[in-house]
Amino acid sequence: MGMSGRHFVKFTFLKVDPAWRRRDPAERARDKEEFAAACRDFGEAHFLRAYSTVGTRGDTDLLIRCASPALEPIHELHVVLNQSGLMRWAEISHSFLALTKESAYSDEPQPLRPREGSERKFLIVYPMWKRRDWYLLPGEERMRIMRGHIETGRRHPSIEINTAYSFGIDDQEFVVSFNADDPGEFLDLVQELRGTESSSFTESETPIFTCISTSVERALDALDGEHVAAHPTLS
Amino acid sequence: MGMSGRHFVKFTFLKVDPAWRRRDPAERARDKEEFAAACRDFGEAHFLRAYSTVGTRGDTDLLIRCASPALEPIHELHVVLNQSGLMRWAEISHSFLALTKESAYSDEPQPLRPREGSERKFLIVYPMWKRRDWYLLPGEERMRIMRGHIETGRRHPSIEINTAYSFGIDDQEFVVSFNADDPGEFLDLVQELRGTESSSFTESETPIFTCISTSVERALDALDGEHVAAHPTLS
Amino acid sequence: MGMSGRHFVKFTFLKVDPAWRRRDPAERARDKEEFAAACRDFGEAHFLRAYSTVGTRGDTDLLIRCASPALEPIHELHVVLNQSGLMRWAEISHSFLALTKESAYSDEPQPLRPREGSERKFLIVYPMWKRRDWYLLPGEERMRIMRGHIETGRRHPSIEINTAYSFGIDDQEFVVSFNADDPGEFLDLVQELRGTESSSFTESETPIFTCISTSVERALDALDGEHVAAHPTLS
Amino acid sequence: MGMSGRHFVKFTFLKVDPAWRRRDPAERARDKEEFAAACRDFGEAHFLRAYSTVGTRGDTDLLIRCASPALEPIHELHVVLNQSGLMRWAEISHSFLALTKESAYSDEPQPLRPREGSERKFLIVYPMWKRRDWYLLPGEERMRIMRGHIETGRRHPSIEINTAYSFGIDDQEFVVSFNADDPGEFLDLVQELRGTESSSFTESETPIFTCISTSVERALDALDGEHVAAHPTLS
Amino acid sequence: MGMSGRHFVKFTFLKVDPAWRRRDPAERARDKEEFAAACRDFGEAHFLRAYSTVGTRGDTDLLIRCASPALEPIHELHVVLNQSGLMRWAEISHSFLALTKESAYSDEPQPLRPREGSERKFLIVYPMWKRRDWYLLPGEERMRIMRGHIETGRRHPSIEINTAYSFGIDDQEFVVSFNADDPGEFLDLVQELRGTESSSFTESETPIFTCISTSVERALDALDGEHVAAHPTLS
Repeated sequence: MGMSGRHFVKFTFLKVDPAWRRRDPAERARDKEEFAAACRDFGEAHFLRAYSTVGTRGDTDLLIRCASPALEPIHELHVVLNQSGLMRWAEISHSFLALTKESAYSDEPQPLRPREGSERKFLIVYPMWKRRDWYLLPGEERMRIMRGHIETGRRHPSIEINTAYSFGIDDQEFVVSFNADDPGEFLDLVQELRGTESSSFTESETPIFTCISTSVERALDALDGEHVAAHPTLS
Repeated sequence: MGMSGRHFVKFTFLKVDPAWRRRDPAERARDKEEFAAACRDFGEAHFLRAYSTVGTRGDTDLLIRCASPALEPIHELHVVLNQSGLMRWAEISHSFLALTKESAYSDEPQPLRPREGSERKFLIVYPMWKRRDWYLLPGEERMRIMRGHIETGRRHPSIEINTAYSFGIDDQEFVVSFNADDPGEFLDLVQELRGTESSSFTESETPIFTCISTSVERALDALDGEHVAAHPTLS
Repeated sequence: MGMSGRHFVKFTFLKVDPAWRRRDPAERARDKEEFAAACRDFGEAHFLRAYSTVGTRGDTDLLIRCASPALEPIHELHVVLNQSGLMRWAEISHSFLALTKESAYSDEPQPLRPREGSERKFLIVYPMWKRRDWYLLPGEERMRIMRGHIETGRRHPSIEINTAYSFGIDDQEFVVSFNADDPGEFLDLVQELRGTESSSFTESETPIFTCISTSVERALDALDGEHVAAHPTLS
Repeated sequence: MGMSGRHFVKFTFLKVDPAWRRRDPAERARDKEEFAAACRDFGEAHFLRAYSTVGTRGDTDLLIRCASPALEPIHELHVVLNQSGLMRWAEISHSFLALTKESAYSDEPQPLRPREGSERKFLIVYPMWKRRDWYLLPGEERMRIMRGHIETGRRHPSIEINTAYSFGIDDQEFVVSFNADDPGEFLDLVQELRGTESSSFTESETPIFTCISTSVERALDALDGEHVAAHPTLS
Repeated sequence: MGMSGRHFVKFTFLKVDPAWRRRDPAERARDKEEFAAACRDFGEAHFLRAYSTVGTRGDTDLLIRCASPALEPIHELHVVLNQSGLMRWAEISHSFLALTKESAYSDEPQPLRPREGSERKFLIVYPMWKRRDWYLLPGEERMRIMRGHIETGRRHPSIEINTAYSFGIDDQEFVVSFNADDPGEFLDLVQELRGTESSSFTESETPIFTCISTSVERALDALDGEHVAAHPTLS
């Protein structure tokens, strides 16, 4: 798969103003429906998934993860979201822009666009920076260290890793995300990886977001605990 | 006790908007009662405890600490809390998600779910990160260091420690909490531990929350100094 | 003096919302009077002092410093303050909880409760953390270093030091405060101490608050430049 | 080109209050038009370009990049912007002030004012600080290291670099910006540069802003997804 | 000149709430006039200068720089400012308190109060901290290093330096400010100083504020681009 297959991936974390919950239920339903409609429109031609962080974090309620081979459709999606009632009461509390890229270390083909069919219950997301001395190691040394890291991960085949790259286009160097059904298994894997050589070259890998896979509509319903009237589901 | 006994533990710290205190007393009573009702419902089948931080911190007023073997009920609790009047005027100022796990160092069995019967007057909570070089020490070296640490703690049997793990599911590596009746004794213990080898491997252990054990209703009443009308107590 | 003499000391720094100053003068007077009344009630049986930071800092307007042998009365004071009109328009911008403790280094008796009779014009307050390697030094080495530090301080007898301890009960390790009449003399002392061995073991000692000793009422009057109607003075 | 050719360059990043989107469409159109008019007036005699960050970042919506040989016109522009309706609902979330300067390292002439004719689709901007030990290296050593850095950049002729200097006039040391059509090519270049000696002397180079080149009017329209009535385009 | 000549210097940076600009022009004019009147009253007996940061920074609009041999008049000025309409809509976004002191390094007399007659067009201000190991150097070593630093500065006689000291009375160790007509010359000087030995002992010297000298009234007018009705100028 050539470079033409690279995709921009955007992680937009939203936090609603508590004052939004004081609005009438009908107004809130309309605010949510306008937001969901924009997501559905984008999702017809592009990748878009929604996740709820209600109950897992305090600084965000909702994650919209979308992808496109070009940046313009992602810009347009956010322009249309700005038209929705919800964005009159919400802030983007975290934002990560990244691009897929073929791995220099893995000998297995890696998809350059998000996995369509993942049915895992959780997505765990974090931005990552490596220490600068990592980049000064000889290539074969970095290869040796990364292969050990990758080997450990392979012993947990139920956890899928998605690595995207942000060098020069956003603050972090990488946005790493994992599809998993059992957060406990992922926790055990991360703790095990702390003892690897690779881990000592990590500069930062927070904040860490545990996100619950759901539809856009259900992620919106979790904001105020009320169900939007009958609507088509996205996935 | 097997892995099936592991519990997710969620620490949700709330801070009310000062503007909430401008509402009518009847409105505030209803806002609080809706919040308390959600906690009582959850508490029927799950672990839930409330604590007040009024007078001990400035960035939070109230802690809800809940636990469940699965993440979904914790998500659902927070969705229902979002329906309450109080969450129209409150922010989650701190949030820690963790999972219990059997200790690699202790030779005593440790409970994998929160201690039901603790009657200590205070809960002291903090997130913790160890330095990365800790994880590169040989296992027996870490065992030796931790046993010294544990020995010191054992000389204070009135202080119960609860360690939960957050690797890869939230920002911190651990959430450590202590049940204690005398904050002064705990202070002396922590100061004594500063001189141990273990302490030099701590990367960060702030913020530190001194929380006053109470019922959900009394923790809510501390927000505005007014008592909710007659209500059943949770514990 | 035994352990029974230890006191909790709470430093509560308040910042009023600029919008509070838009309220009617009569409303503001009542808001302030309710706050002052809560302080007077507490002050009848406990230690409470007020300070203004108007003109010395930008992130706080007012400091309430209170003390009690137990934590509960301090909690109760803050619950009652939450009933006052002022706390409907104010945030706690900084908060430090500490406990007095006999010094391991000084050979002079140190009071375990705040000095009642201090008439100094200023109180300078800051939280402090020492570097972790300090705690790994042999006890006699720490004793030698601290005695040099204490000697320097003794050459400025007009400056009284109050050390309180926060290990494990709040973010900082110490809350250090000084009663002084001449901030310039204190500045010269602190600059002189930079050259001591002790100073190189300081991890952090900011923020530093220069607080003007006053009555609760006058500290409140500085918030909007208007005098509360005739009221009894606290001290 | 002499020193007289130096230009001040100002990067003003704006974030609108979500509450602004609750205003009537006609009010929003007027708010935007007043802002655009101020930009057009300035742009008649000075350099001014607009960029949208909707969809690429969460902490800013819009970048105004302007330049002038003197600081006063830039001050005046911002005074006039403060008259516009939009600045009654917007914050300057990031601000960088810099000055152009002839490079000590490049042997090619570098323009001292922004490139008028650049038609690249993106502008990538970040503030940069070098480590203090960089400045203690001998001049020829720094020359050698920078020339290697510059050589790598030259292999990507479609990416134009604009370096401006902020020593002593704003927080950062440099404001670096790049005109590029393909963010993916820029990402690959930055990742490649991580392995150079020069990169190890970087203290900080975040936040990184990927900005979409557009007209002032279209950048404003992206704020609420609605088009201002017929207006002349700026560029 | 003896110690009696020392002056407290206070730098109060203000940021107005964008909502203030929504008020009626007449209300805004009165809000500004009340603020200006307080400054004029103080300025009759004390040093007070105003600066605009509109167009140079995003986190502040206005600097009031005042001085007095005692702290009380500075406190009183800020109490009176709190009475003004403007402080019902403004925050103090940065605040630095300092005290003048005779230099230990310079062999030229330095004024202990701000220069009355400076007519430079800009004031550049920043807080500074030195590294702790600086203070452990022998006095003659520090003298040697500082004299090299001072020599470099002397080659730019059009730039006047004002050093004030904050040890123990505010967060920073020093507040350094420069009167200059040409920010470009200052930029070149600061870049040149990066290569000196002295510079490597700097712990932090940000934020850096480029402030435009003006009258109080004109600094206020820059907030909303509207002129206060006829008023006497301060300087």
